[in-house]
Amino acid sequence: VAPKVHIGPQVDPAIERAVRDGGGAAAALEAADAVVWLDWRTDGFPERLPDGVRWVQLPSAGVEIWLPRIGADGPVYTSAAGVYAVPVAEHALGLLLAGVRGLVASARATSWRPDPRRTLEGSTVAIVGAGGIGRALIEMLAPHDVEIVAVTRRGRPVAGAARTLAADALPDVWSQADHFVIAAPATGATRHLVGAEQLRAMPAHGWLVNVARGSLIGTDALVSALHAGEIGGAALDVTDPEPLPDGHPLWTAPNALITPHIANPPSAMMRHLAERVRENVRRFAAGEPLLAPIDPDAGY
Amino acid sequence: VAPKVHIGPQVDPAIERAVRDGGGAAAALEAADAVVWLDWRTDGFPERLPDGVRWVQLPSAGVEIWLPRIGADGPVYTSAAGVYAVPVAEHALGLLLAGVRGLVASARATSWRPDPRRTLEGSTVAIVGAGGIGRALIEMLAPHDVEIVAVTRRGRPVAGAARTLAADALPDVWSQADHFVIAAPATGATRHLVGAEQLRAMPAHGWLVNVARGSLIGTDALVSALHAGEIGGAALDVTDPEPLPDGHPLWTAPNALITPHIANPPSAMMRHLAERVRENVRRFAAGEPLLAPIDPDAGY
Repeated sequence: VAPKVHIGPQVDPAIERAVRDGGGAAAALEAADAVVWLDWRTDGFPERLPDGVRWVQLPSAGVEIWLPRIGADGPVYTSAAGVYAVPVAEHALGLLLAGVRGLVASARATSWRPDPRRTLEGSTVAIVGAGGIGRALIEMLAPHDVEIVAVTRRGRPVAGAARTLAADALPDVWSQADHFVIAAPATGATRHLVGAEQLRAMPAHGWLVNVARGSLIGTDALVSALHAGEIGGAALDVTDPEPLPDGHPLWTAPNALITPHIANPPSAMMRHLAERVRENVRRFAAGEPLLAPIDPDAGY
Repeated sequence: VAPKVHIGPQVDPAIERAVRDGGGAAAALEAADAVVWLDWRTDGFPERLPDGVRWVQLPSAGVEIWLPRIGADGPVYTSAAGVYAVPVAEHALGLLLAGVRGLVASARATSWRPDPRRTLEGSTVAIVGAGGIGRALIEMLAPHDVEIVAVTRRGRPVAGAARTLAADALPDVWSQADHFVIAAPATGATRHLVGAEQLRAMPAHGWLVNVARGSLIGTDALVSALHAGEIGGAALDVTDPEPLPDGHPLWTAPNALITPHIANPPSAMMRHLAERVRENVRRFAAGEPLLAPIDPDAGY
């Protein structure tokens, strides 16, 4: 029997097709075995799910705002972890190149001033977090002559990285690379992973890229480090607070590039999410383990 | 016998070492068999070379300003074609991502406005000119999900390109790709390769990247196209005129990103040139054909 899948809060044609292609049938919430939720925000999510719902697919890769809703004995929740890895890694590469290549200053220039710039070629890039985004970025960096240092929780070797450090060796990494890409989940353990001390340890030409969550970087410390010229610059798709309010000092800090959380733009989102929905509906129908089940204790 | 190689107008330690490693010996101009010239400009170059000089290595990949000096019966001149392919291709990729990912607008923003943006993923990129730079860029694009259309003089298939067009099919390419990277040499045949008609044929979201020479694009036509919103934007490392004077309308045209001819920054230049000098000195000493001899008729 085809599992009954409710799509909310609104229907999307690509997701409807994916449910069908995975072997499911669209259904009202009351009759549903599973829910595919398409809104990033928690507001409109049903206060109480019908007892028949055994699985909820969330649309986002980072799920920290959803954790309070996920109980031990309720349905299985799955995140979209890994789903948007390619567009987000692509954005991270764009931010990294924009920083290293001096494009931020150029975008603001109205005069021809050939100033000394660096190349990404020949540099060492540390990638903090080697989940889907980190691994996709490592693949994108493969044709570039860069040395990659990956940082993962347990330090298991990551394909394409020259070396991998475990999280407890993280304090060493800041002086061992030229540039840093933050792509780790937001958890209690990663909050303010980058603060004043870490920024001081980075080389003065180093760029810091964040495509994870704003909370991983101490914003005040970053603003100070940018003004002091302690690092080359910061390119951030995520900020703390977010949205970054008008007049916030990050907007005008030297060598700061802010993009408004669009590493995974809407044009790419539904296409990628649809693939995951199809596969997870197929697994749900077949009784196989779902992709990216959320572990509320780990926080992702 | 080690060939005598004069390095001018000033000595560089990396180039001196390369001459030695290639089997040559440093020499004064009067005694030289060969000259390695390190200045981009023609001004300081000897008006008349001693008769003993049989080979001149120039430092630049594009040599249009040197052509008047290259006679049929003088020494062989070699360019640095291909030498800086990697740093220049890296810059081209940075410009392309900056354009497609909306980083130009973001660098100028002081307010959080999540606007619709595109991804490079899923797009078609036309690369006009598949010499060293074009081929290096194709390698860098390999891990990205993009379709590559290469345009070469004769249309011979280029590795990594989904299809290759010959120069005489160029008029078709402007409507067949999302984005365009100009990486062809500046010759009489490529002057104003991109003009009003070509810009009109490009998609309204298309970005135009130029890392070749400013003369390949009609500047007035480009400024008009940017103001009319006929293309997504233009990211240019080279301009016409160059340097771009203060107050030039390109500085303030919508979605224009100008970098001051620094795709191959000084920090990368000597390192890459040294490799070529070593190899060409070795070939010169062994009587083998030199890399990148200039054909004055072809213009490169």
